[in-house]
Amino acid sequence: MQPPLRIDHHPANSLRRTIYRVLETTTGRKRGMSLVFNLILIALITLNAAAIILHTVPSFKLRYDRFFIDFELFSVIFFTIEYFVRVWICVENEKYRHPVTGRLRYVLSTTAIVHLLAILPFYVTLFHTDLALIRILRIFRIFRLFRITRYSRAFRVIQDVVEDKKEELVLSVSFLMFMLVIISSIMYYLEHTTQPDKFSSIPATLWWGINAMATVGYGDIHPMTPLGKVLAGITTVMGIGLFALPTGILASGFAEHIRSQKSGQKHHCPHCGKEL
Amino acid sequence: MQPPLRIDHHPANSLRRTIYRVLETTTGRKRGMSLVFNLILIALITLNAAAIILHTVPSFKLRYDRFFIDFELFSVIFFTIEYFVRVWICVENEKYRHPVTGRLRYVLSTTAIVHLLAILPFYVTLFHTDLALIRILRIFRIFRLFRITRYSRAFRVIQDVVEDKKEELVLSVSFLMFMLVIISSIMYYLEHTTQPDKFSSIPATLWWGINAMATVGYGDIHPMTPLGKVLAGITTVMGIGLFALPTGILASGFAEHIRSQKSGQKHHCPHCGKEL
Amino acid sequence: MQPPLRIDHHPANSLRRTIYRVLETTTGRKRGMSLVFNLILIALITLNAAAIILHTVPSFKLRYDRFFIDFELFSVIFFTIEYFVRVWICVENEKYRHPVTGRLRYVLSTTAIVHLLAILPFYVTLFHTDLALIRILRIFRIFRLFRITRYSRAFRVIQDVVEDKKEELVLSVSFLMFMLVIISSIMYYLEHTTQPDKFSSIPATLWWGINAMATVGYGDIHPMTPLGKVLAGITTVMGIGLFALPTGILASGFAEHIRSQKSGQKHHCPHCGKEL
Amino acid sequence: MQPPLRIDHHPANSLRRTIYRVLETTTGRKRGMSLVFNLILIALITLNAAAIILHTVPSFKLRYDRFFIDFELFSVIFFTIEYFVRVWICVENEKYRHPVTGRLRYVLSTTAIVHLLAILPFYVTLFHTDLALIRILRIFRIFRLFRITRYSRAFRVIQDVVEDKKEELVLSVSFLMFMLVIISSIMYYLEHTTQPDKFSSIPATLWWGINAMATVGYGDIHPMTPLGKVLAGITTVMGIGLFALPTGILASGFAEHIRSQKSGQKHHCPHCGKEL
Repeated sequence: MQPPLRIDHHPANSLRRTIYRVLETTTGRKRGMSLVFNLILIALITLNAAAIILHTVPSFKLRYDRFFIDFELFSVIFFTIEYFVRVWICVENEKYRHPVTGRLRYVLSTTAIVHLLAILPFYVTLFHTDLALIRILRIFRIFRLFRITRYSRAFRVIQDVVEDKKEELVLSVSFLMFMLVIISSIMYYLEHTTQPDKFSSIPATLWWGINAMATVGYGDIHPMTPLGKVLAGITTVMGIGLFALPTGILASGFAEHIRSQKSGQKHHCPHCGKEL
Repeated sequence: MQPPLRIDHHPANSLRRTIYRVLETTTGRKRGMSLVFNLILIALITLNAAAIILHTVPSFKLRYDRFFIDFELFSVIFFTIEYFVRVWICVENEKYRHPVTGRLRYVLSTTAIVHLLAILPFYVTLFHTDLALIRILRIFRIFRLFRITRYSRAFRVIQDVVEDKKEELVLSVSFLMFMLVIISSIMYYLEHTTQPDKFSSIPATLWWGINAMATVGYGDIHPMTPLGKVLAGITTVMGIGLFALPTGILASGFAEHIRSQKSGQKHHCPHCGKEL
Repeated sequence: MQPPLRIDHHPANSLRRTIYRVLETTTGRKRGMSLVFNLILIALITLNAAAIILHTVPSFKLRYDRFFIDFELFSVIFFTIEYFVRVWICVENEKYRHPVTGRLRYVLSTTAIVHLLAILPFYVTLFHTDLALIRILRIFRIFRLFRITRYSRAFRVIQDVVEDKKEELVLSVSFLMFMLVIISSIMYYLEHTTQPDKFSSIPATLWWGINAMATVGYGDIHPMTPLGKVLAGITTVMGIGLFALPTGILASGFAEHIRSQKSGQKHHCPHCGKEL
Repeated sequence: MQPPLRIDHHPANSLRRTIYRVLETTTGRKRGMSLVFNLILIALITLNAAAIILHTVPSFKLRYDRFFIDFELFSVIFFTIEYFVRVWICVENEKYRHPVTGRLRYVLSTTAIVHLLAILPFYVTLFHTDLALIRILRIFRIFRLFRITRYSRAFRVIQDVVEDKKEELVLSVSFLMFMLVIISSIMYYLEHTTQPDKFSSIPATLWWGINAMATVGYGDIHPMTPLGKVLAGITTVMGIGLFALPTGILASGFAEHIRSQKSGQKHHCPHCGKEL
């Protein structure tokens, strides 16, 4: 993270390096300012999340609509400036050193894309009045929340665990998907004649299947024929068993991760020093 | 717990010490009386719980209303006297020795506050006739039940386990919350147009989200658009996986706790035999 | 199980001993006959279960009612004779040696009471025509099924595991019950005004509570006030965590039991013989 | 898998061997072609699954019906030819060497039966116009999907785990079934009078029972009498506990399997270092 020593004393470059240290590093000389800036950023993201959530509540929307819109405007301006500043200063990082190709690679990094997707919809909706498009773009506002994951230890731990247990997860989830397709297809043929409106197609039956396997049971769709009920019973029992595979893997991976983080020396006797 | 030896032979002080021994200690000379008093207290709290529960059943309320009200009155008087006695005698405890500041600190301790909250509502309702307030205050009667936790081993074990695994629990629950907010926000934008009365706002969608992740499925709210159903399926699968984290932690922490209690010699190094 | 050697050559006693060996022992000289008799008994109990289940299906009842009633009569006669034979021969067992007090003790043993409860209802219904009573007595017919548990290894294993983990189970289930009462009481006060017909009393709310904690969600009763929904969300999350305690205990106890049965020497290195 | 060396230079036999190497072996000289053929087969099976699923969606059926029917025809012809080719070449395998009895044994192998069941329905429906029969036969088309399991590692791992833990699974599932029958029977007697249309028979109550134990709660059937609700509460609590047994077994078996695959050197005695 520490930028390389370069001997260019141009004032703009010096400013760029200072800003880089505040925004992108958490150690070094500008540590105090960096901490303050990051806390402000976390606070702003959290407030954005709260604003997005509360703005959808009719009573809040009615009373504070003006305030929500102003806050949105302020946030977008802040994030836009921040985005361009980050693109400007990214060359201080060894990874994106080249003024053109380096900056381009930064712009195409996951972090920068998430950042852009969180502000772009605002500008698109300024020029487009297509309601359907605007509605879809609104979802992208949630991307702002994802920016907080950079600061969240929970997110990193889960990410590590998933990475660590990728193979097992893929294996068990793919088996789950396979059984889901098989069972839903059979269920479709069993129930379609009796409930043609509910079990209208295999994709519609997949909705039943995933909920049966996960024991959700919304009650909007369930088999009515005796054979369908028998299959549903088997599905549920099997579903609980199959769901145990990925969840067990995740849980044990999480426990291992925490344990290994808590103490590297845990597996040694504190008296004789031998490994246990 | 043993009070300090003090050479004040004032009869009131002597009585205070005797009562302290009966109420607050379970060892020493007044052990028999202490046991009897605590059993009476547990019985009274249990009966209070039963009374609170049964008083809400219309048929019981109709027939035994008088009895329930009398029992409530008796309980409140008993608990009030007990409260003031405990405040009076608390100075016998080394921790609350000072007659004024010690007693004040006792009054502000969790135990004393729970005790007070369980009786105060009764007196408030005597002077206020605001129905809304009375209804809220009724909830505080449940605090009486919490007083039994002092005697329950189960409560202490769970408390220890939660304390022990605090970090892991906070980590996994915070990730769960984060995913809940993200998913509910997306679901709101997907379903709001189709079901504006059910997915009326993001907070309303959070209700769906928590139930989908926990596989409850009351059936009062569920997605209807194809995209919404796909997201719901992913949510449920992910929810089962994410819920496995805190539950697995709690379960293994509980197992460890019980195991370590069952045998004190279990955690010895197999090489040097010393305690770990 | 082997009866003591006694020198009474009375023909009735000799017959009694032979029957005892067939009915109650599975080793020794009458092993072949004993096996045959037990298989017949298991078959009869299984057929009884099938008959009880199928007799409740209207279409079966209409067509084969006569057959079901005849089979019931035959079964009751068979089980009645068997019951009296077992009482007669029980003195061959060292435990119930005394002709009067021994037999009395046998009659009061769990096995004999279950046996009696499975046939008694039939005779009661012969003399009583009170429909309500008859309906209740019908439930006791299920006790016949319990007799099969004597032959089931699954039942014995589960019983052993529960016995082994009794303390942990009691601890976690009692905490579950405590939280259930607390949460249901609070929920009652939160929802009663809005849904007085559903959350009609605390016992009625307990039905919601247990289903919320277990994530069942029938949909017949669920909170509607914002505060109620928040409490419901917390309840469900907590419920999953708390249910993990007894289930984790049972599962690990079961795994331990099976492992210890599979190999007594598993925890030793097969090469150096040292314990692992 | 490698066919035995035989000195018959008949051109048809030489062709047969070449085809055998392409279709049935994944090593040896024809490895490249074998890989290509298997990839085509996997692609065709996957497309078949997609076609079966999409063909049931009304909008797709309307627009692309002709295409789906043509693709079905093409697939059946392909699979039929493949089936007969496999029967013809199977004698190259040491196991099915004999031209008549070997081929017969191949035809009766699970793989060949699954293969046949996936194409047979098509030919049956050509000659039969009985709609009920055709509907049932449609289910068999799903068997095509099962052919992909031969190439799926996930399927093999799960199969191994189930094989490995067979005894425990049978034990716990049989206990689950036993409790299900007992509880559903009692529930039937408790609820039948109040809800004769829902709890119409014990088999109908079994549907409630399995869903209560698995915490599904569709809401189509649930107890209404106080006693029924108490039993339902106990059932759910017990169900969670009992379901923990097979799922815990599966999960730990899966974890063991993966672990033992990941590292062969993991199971060494820490004292003498030899393999366990």
